[in-house]
Amino acid sequence: MNKIFRKLHPPAGARPGTLVVHDKSPRPRIRVMRYSADQVETLEDVSVESLRELVDSKARMWIDVEGLGDEGVLRQLGDLFLIHPLALEDVVNVPQRPKAEEFDHHLLLITRLSSLDDRSQLEIAQLSLFLGKHFVLSFQEFPADVLEPIRARLREGKGPIRRSGPDYLAYAIVDVVIDAYYPIIERLSATIEELEERVIAQPTTRVLQEHNRIRANLLGLRRGIRPQLDTLNDLQKSGSRYISSDVATYLRDIADHCAQLTDVIDSHRDLLSGLLNTHLSMVSHRTNEVMKVLTIMASIFIPLTFMAGIYGMNFDHMPELHNRYAYPTLMGAMLTVGIVMLLYFRHRGWIGGGDKPAGDKRDSA
Amino acid sequence: MNKIFRKLHPPAGARPGTLVVHDKSPRPRIRVMRYSADQVETLEDVSVESLRELVDSKARMWIDVEGLGDEGVLRQLGDLFLIHPLALEDVVNVPQRPKAEEFDHHLLLITRLSSLDDRSQLEIAQLSLFLGKHFVLSFQEFPADVLEPIRARLREGKGPIRRSGPDYLAYAIVDVVIDAYYPIIERLSATIEELEERVIAQPTTRVLQEHNRIRANLLGLRRGIRPQLDTLNDLQKSGSRYISSDVATYLRDIADHCAQLTDVIDSHRDLLSGLLNTHLSMVSHRTNEVMKVLTIMASIFIPLTFMAGIYGMNFDHMPELHNRYAYPTLMGAMLTVGIVMLLYFRHRGWIGGGDKPAGDKRDSA
Amino acid sequence: MNKIFRKLHPPAGARPGTLVVHDKSPRPRIRVMRYSADQVETLEDVSVESLRELVDSKARMWIDVEGLGDEGVLRQLGDLFLIHPLALEDVVNVPQRPKAEEFDHHLLLITRLSSLDDRSQLEIAQLSLFLGKHFVLSFQEFPADVLEPIRARLREGKGPIRRSGPDYLAYAIVDVVIDAYYPIIERLSATIEELEERVIAQPTTRVLQEHNRIRANLLGLRRGIRPQLDTLNDLQKSGSRYISSDVATYLRDIADHCAQLTDVIDSHRDLLSGLLNTHLSMVSHRTNEVMKVLTIMASIFIPLTFMAGIYGMNFDHMPELHNRYAYPTLMGAMLTVGIVMLLYFRHRGWIGGGDKPAGDKRDSA
Amino acid sequence: MNKIFRKLHPPAGARPGTLVVHDKSPRPRIRVMRYSADQVETLEDVSVESLRELVDSKARMWIDVEGLGDEGVLRQLGDLFLIHPLALEDVVNVPQRPKAEEFDHHLLLITRLSSLDDRSQLEIAQLSLFLGKHFVLSFQEFPADVLEPIRARLREGKGPIRRSGPDYLAYAIVDVVIDAYYPIIERLSATIEELEERVIAQPTTRVLQEHNRIRANLLGLRRGIRPQLDTLNDLQKSGSRYISSDVATYLRDIADHCAQLTDVIDSHRDLLSGLLNTHLSMVSHRTNEVMKVLTIMASIFIPLTFMAGIYGMNFDHMPELHNRYAYPTLMGAMLTVGIVMLLYFRHRGWIGGGDKPAGDKRDSA
Amino acid sequence: MNKIFRKLHPPAGARPGTLVVHDKSPRPRIRVMRYSADQVETLEDVSVESLRELVDSKARMWIDVEGLGDEGVLRQLGDLFLIHPLALEDVVNVPQRPKAEEFDHHLLLITRLSSLDDRSQLEIAQLSLFLGKHFVLSFQEFPADVLEPIRARLREGKGPIRRSGPDYLAYAIVDVVIDAYYPIIERLSATIEELEERVIAQPTTRVLQEHNRIRANLLGLRRGIRPQLDTLNDLQKSGSRYISSDVATYLRDIADHCAQLTDVIDSHRDLLSGLLNTHLSMVSHRTNEVMKVLTIMASIFIPLTFMAGIYGMNFDHMPELHNRYAYPTLMGAMLTVGIVMLLYFRHRGWIGGGDKPAGDKRDSA
Repeated sequence: MNKIFRKLHPPAGARPGTLVVHDKSPRPRIRVMRYSADQVETLEDVSVESLRELVDSKARMWIDVEGLGDEGVLRQLGDLFLIHPLALEDVVNVPQRPKAEEFDHHLLLITRLSSLDDRSQLEIAQLSLFLGKHFVLSFQEFPADVLEPIRARLREGKGPIRRSGPDYLAYAIVDVVIDAYYPIIERLSATIEELEERVIAQPTTRVLQEHNRIRANLLGLRRGIRPQLDTLNDLQKSGSRYISSDVATYLRDIADHCAQLTDVIDSHRDLLSGLLNTHLSMVSHRTNEVMKVLTIMASIFIPLTFMAGIYGMNFDHMPELHNRYAYPTLMGAMLTVGIVMLLYFRHRGWIGGGDKPAGDKRDSA
Repeated sequence: MNKIFRKLHPPAGARPGTLVVHDKSPRPRIRVMRYSADQVETLEDVSVESLRELVDSKARMWIDVEGLGDEGVLRQLGDLFLIHPLALEDVVNVPQRPKAEEFDHHLLLITRLSSLDDRSQLEIAQLSLFLGKHFVLSFQEFPADVLEPIRARLREGKGPIRRSGPDYLAYAIVDVVIDAYYPIIERLSATIEELEERVIAQPTTRVLQEHNRIRANLLGLRRGIRPQLDTLNDLQKSGSRYISSDVATYLRDIADHCAQLTDVIDSHRDLLSGLLNTHLSMVSHRTNEVMKVLTIMASIFIPLTFMAGIYGMNFDHMPELHNRYAYPTLMGAMLTVGIVMLLYFRHRGWIGGGDKPAGDKRDSA
Repeated sequence: MNKIFRKLHPPAGARPGTLVVHDKSPRPRIRVMRYSADQVETLEDVSVESLRELVDSKARMWIDVEGLGDEGVLRQLGDLFLIHPLALEDVVNVPQRPKAEEFDHHLLLITRLSSLDDRSQLEIAQLSLFLGKHFVLSFQEFPADVLEPIRARLREGKGPIRRSGPDYLAYAIVDVVIDAYYPIIERLSATIEELEERVIAQPTTRVLQEHNRIRANLLGLRRGIRPQLDTLNDLQKSGSRYISSDVATYLRDIADHCAQLTDVIDSHRDLLSGLLNTHLSMVSHRTNEVMKVLTIMASIFIPLTFMAGIYGMNFDHMPELHNRYAYPTLMGAMLTVGIVMLLYFRHRGWIGGGDKPAGDKRDSA
Repeated sequence: MNKIFRKLHPPAGARPGTLVVHDKSPRPRIRVMRYSADQVETLEDVSVESLRELVDSKARMWIDVEGLGDEGVLRQLGDLFLIHPLALEDVVNVPQRPKAEEFDHHLLLITRLSSLDDRSQLEIAQLSLFLGKHFVLSFQEFPADVLEPIRARLREGKGPIRRSGPDYLAYAIVDVVIDAYYPIIERLSATIEELEERVIAQPTTRVLQEHNRIRANLLGLRRGIRPQLDTLNDLQKSGSRYISSDVATYLRDIADHCAQLTDVIDSHRDLLSGLLNTHLSMVSHRTNEVMKVLTIMASIFIPLTFMAGIYGMNFDHMPELHNRYAYPTLMGAMLTVGIVMLLYFRHRGWIGGGDKPAGDKRDSA
Repeated sequence: MNKIFRKLHPPAGARPGTLVVHDKSPRPRIRVMRYSADQVETLEDVSVESLRELVDSKARMWIDVEGLGDEGVLRQLGDLFLIHPLALEDVVNVPQRPKAEEFDHHLLLITRLSSLDDRSQLEIAQLSLFLGKHFVLSFQEFPADVLEPIRARLREGKGPIRRSGPDYLAYAIVDVVIDAYYPIIERLSATIEELEERVIAQPTTRVLQEHNRIRANLLGLRRGIRPQLDTLNDLQKSGSRYISSDVATYLRDIADHCAQLTDVIDSHRDLLSGLLNTHLSMVSHRTNEVMKVLTIMASIFIPLTFMAGIYGMNFDHMPELHNRYAYPTLMGAMLTVGIVMLLYFRHRGWIGGGDKPAGDKRDSA
């Protein structure tokens, strides 16, 4: 299976509204929380039939569907809540871009839940919400405990969650989804910091690969956040029958979070681009170092070898050969040449210390 | 023939409405599907004359023209359907940018059909639609079976396609055109993934060329999708006499697909740019590797050669030469020097640190 | 004279409306075509005086002025047609950005005519149009035969050109100007294609210079097209007294062409940037190749030279020297070392893997 | 603690309005300045209880809260001033993006105070303002003397500060916050200038790291300024009940400052990118220099060594060996070869042109 | 003093309207030109007191203030012309961004005068204009003769300058300011052209520094032009009490110039980026050249040295040594090896193809 781009879509030419049920997707489990300011009641594993009665009661409730693995159940739910075929398609043929779309009987909110798996691979899952006058109907691809705190708050009954309408509940769910981006970005921040240290110490290709991975993750997060921000801003401007003005203020707060997350992601991307420059510069620097070693070794010993070569010649008339002190003299000359070369390289700052700024002094970085 | 930019256009200064018929374009074949909620009738190879009667019958129908290779037939069709000369020019002088333009007697929709040929070269073909009150008139450059599923759905008669007006049929056709982008992008995704592995293993120029090819393909896809998205958004804002509000909802769904495709294309382009950086870094790394081999070989053997050179000199007075143990001693010294150099390079991580691309392990530079 | 940026402008502080007549600009020649649906009459080398009578006749006509080399004539024309001093300045002090500006007595359209000279250098010339109720007054910097097809169409009298008002004539002229961009872009496309092949075969600086030249040309074309597109869109939105709704449809068609040209130019720029990457990568690859030759030669012969150096030493006690088989043994050892080195380099893919630029085949680094 | 991205946020799923009190945040100290055109009164360490009476007096006053370290006090203040739970959350869960949000009883202004610490690390602190009809309520994360000049101006009573309403005071506070950006940017400018000199003299990795640090700082400053500019422009367009038209003119002035700061930051970023290019070019140049030394040394001495090697051969029949003048002749030939090589390299500009990094002076290539 | 960013600003926390008088700024000299259609009168070194009477006369006039070096005089002028404290601050605390701001008694226009000093360093100076019903009040940082042509036109009285109101005079002044950008850009164009030739001949760091300098200059010019363009467009849209519709047409002309200048600046920046690529490629090419020399020298002489080394060995049993023709045979073999190597390198295009930077001619890699 393709890892970069995963998208369930019907074969080209299929009837609109065709649902593509992924074979690994778990069968839908329906959990209903019926609540009022005074009390809350949780019903697990509700069947679509018994759901029908609940819906007719017009009580305030949250129907949470986990798993998209049964087209029949999904279609029954669609019929029960008068969901437009295209809306149902958006819920099932994941992933969709985050969006808000108002239909005749409800407002559809599509949000993207992000998480990092063990190997720091970004995983996204879609959480779709239908917000009606009396209910919130939520669909999750996979069972996840991200909504557990909301259930807890509903049970506890503190704060406005039980007193307010389903629009507040929908807000609370979206808020939880967006809040889950913060720890991911913090984890990526930590990785970038660590990478900034490693890039100096070890400019390996592995650093570059990790750099690319983080960059792709940031881009993935941005792709989840940015349309969410646009969606919330549009919703603010146009308003919706299903959202009270009180809750609109709360949505503005989520929009602020999205804007901040976008900012942070963008500056992280800038940090990564600085890191890339450092990496490329370090690779060049490394080559430079290798070259210096070669140049120093060759520049010292090649002339010396030449000098030795001269006195290895077999000419009959080479008076120096017979001089008693020629050998030690030559050895001294060779030593001198070697030391002069060393001093020259030291002067240029290629080895040891050296003074002149002309050379790469103290290039220990 | 120019491969990068192909565009049929009349010679500069030609009368507007001049049609440029490509000599390889097949002769037009007209197929008519007359349909109502209850029945459907398919007429193959209809002549323009018999078409005239069909049109006068005001029945709901789809006239599908395959091939643009006969100016006379095209002009007759233009007269029959009261097509503006410029609109007809847009149909024939392919490719045009995707657009929607409302004329007096119909709405013109120009869409771009993309496909990958065997050598993964992007091919585009234009599909133009005239949407009138009673008919859809479609023009295809080449016969293609991309519209076959729609014909099948018309024949089957399930879903709203036969019950709805020609605007729904036009939607269904555009939907099929856009859906055909998904498998292309999935194929490019797979190629990018494969390339990401190869770029580490073999940083050859071929990888770079493939990178350029995919990048050009992505850009070509974007050039087909982006104006389509703008067109659909504009259509949504301004509305059209020929599109009912029900079908407008469906068009919004296509717009969502276009937005998602644009997103995916953009993130693929970002992946490619990361891949390019990896390639360039790998090339530098390769040079580095070559340099290290040279430096190690030269740094070890040049000093040793020099040592040998010294005792190859022919001075009369070189006492070492006559020492019984000088030779083995020197050989030992040479071995020591060689081992010291090897240890030094090992210490710098240039050798022995495995064959991993991680490279320079503990280089203190 | 400055080649990159050429712009006639009066000295700073000059009165607005100051005309800067270039000394190489030819003297203006005035050609008048008076036409109606039934007939057409061409008058060559009309003097301003006789023009005055023609204008008073209120007949439909096209006054075409070639050459801007006489301030007196230009000012007389300005007085005759009630041209605003700033508008006249825009006509003469070329080049201006393409624009459309409505004055009290006419609409001024400034367009940019582009062409490639023999050395593929982009040349631009300004074509300015005043569109009045009864006339089109056009100014060209230099005589050019680009408008000849329009004159021919006027003489032939086919199509709507003679039946329609001067707004259609103005449209036809602008259409010709924009159509002239297509062959230029096709020629640049062909050059890019050719360059894409050469960049692999010969990564020379000349390729880079050609790359820069094409890029500058594309940018120059874009600078001519983009403001034209904006101008036409603005004109569409605001409308003009001088343009009928029929002709507005035709202008929308030119705007589509401009949008397409902009698209094509942008994708060509992207191709060029891919080409640049390939060039830079090829240069690195070339250095790599040079390094490999050096490394292979040095790595094989330096150790061998060292071995020879050992047995060139003059120690008294070197038992091998007196062994009968030492020499052939050593030669065999040297051969072995050389072959081992060759096999090693072959194993790393540095040699023997063909001459393909694919290079490093099985390098495990 | 994460250094790149610091953001206090409640655990995902927490009730909106949850305050995250940082354990290092000092306990809030409340200072009240009650003022009128004639007099000013300063009250230090006011308790929330005594504040209640002051607020009821409807006198014009500035309540300045330093430190956010006590949730209880913050909640009491929230109740007293009827602060929306989300607004209070924005004040405490720092940092937020600069913004202006109008609530029922006041206008909330969030600004970002920037400063450079000793190690030129950018530090940001949030300053939040509630502007009511009679009061300004400001919250600072940490005690800072940045607002001291305002207190002084209030005490002095010169200028309009005491005559005007709290909107002018709020303006004065925001003005001080924005003015504090100027010295930071000047300091960064000085560092860039210094870096521009160092990058030529010493192209070390340290320069690159400093470059990255400044770039990150500039980006951080931009992230503080840009939303502030948008906020002020929005406020100008929409107006606010709490801001008089006189003070609106003053706010326009701050918006101008923000626009100028954004400009300056952007051009500094451009300077940095030029600096990066210089750095990368210098690194290549350095490698080039190293290569030249190696090439010169090797090119001179390797041929000479070969010449010496020839006459070190032990052939029986080498007539030159017995020639009396062969040795000095050979030495002369070697000298000639060496000088010719030196002249060649000098001709190519590789040597002799001083030690300036300007490098290749007269290289004709 | 900081050179990159120069901005006079009061200390943070200062009262708004605080003037920062630069100690090098000359004392203000006031020159008044009172004019009508018929006559013009110039008064030099007018004192503020005598100015008061002139202003009361309601005659049409231009008050030109050169130098900002006396806070007292500036404040008196501010009182006399009812200038808002913030407007006066904008005049004195230079530089401000170009802008147009309408106050109760006049329109403030801030423009930026650019010039190149001897060392091609960009210098900017602010020219501020207050346009009232009867007067233009202009402030210049330093005495400059840029406005002299306007004074001459006023004295001559040709053209509309004396017949029109002060709005035309203000237009004329802004026109002169913008016109002064053309020669600067022409000078930079010439430098870029020259640099384009030098970058091939001498790829030194100096070229890069010059490149950076020009880029910074272009950016500086853009920062002066772009807000001017926005300002003029805004002014056109919103209109102003102080500008007649006739003069609005003239301002549109300046806006066109600004748009053209922006275009030209942007394309120059693109040229520079091409130049940078050429530079970086040339540096790599240079390294390549150096490497080739080394590789050729080493590849030829190292094998030869090895061959000589073999026959320098002292084995007792080396039959070749005693062969009469061995020495000349070996010399021939060496010559052959050398020639073969040379031919090989010539075949690869490394030598012999002239010294052109075109480089690797027939390299098949």
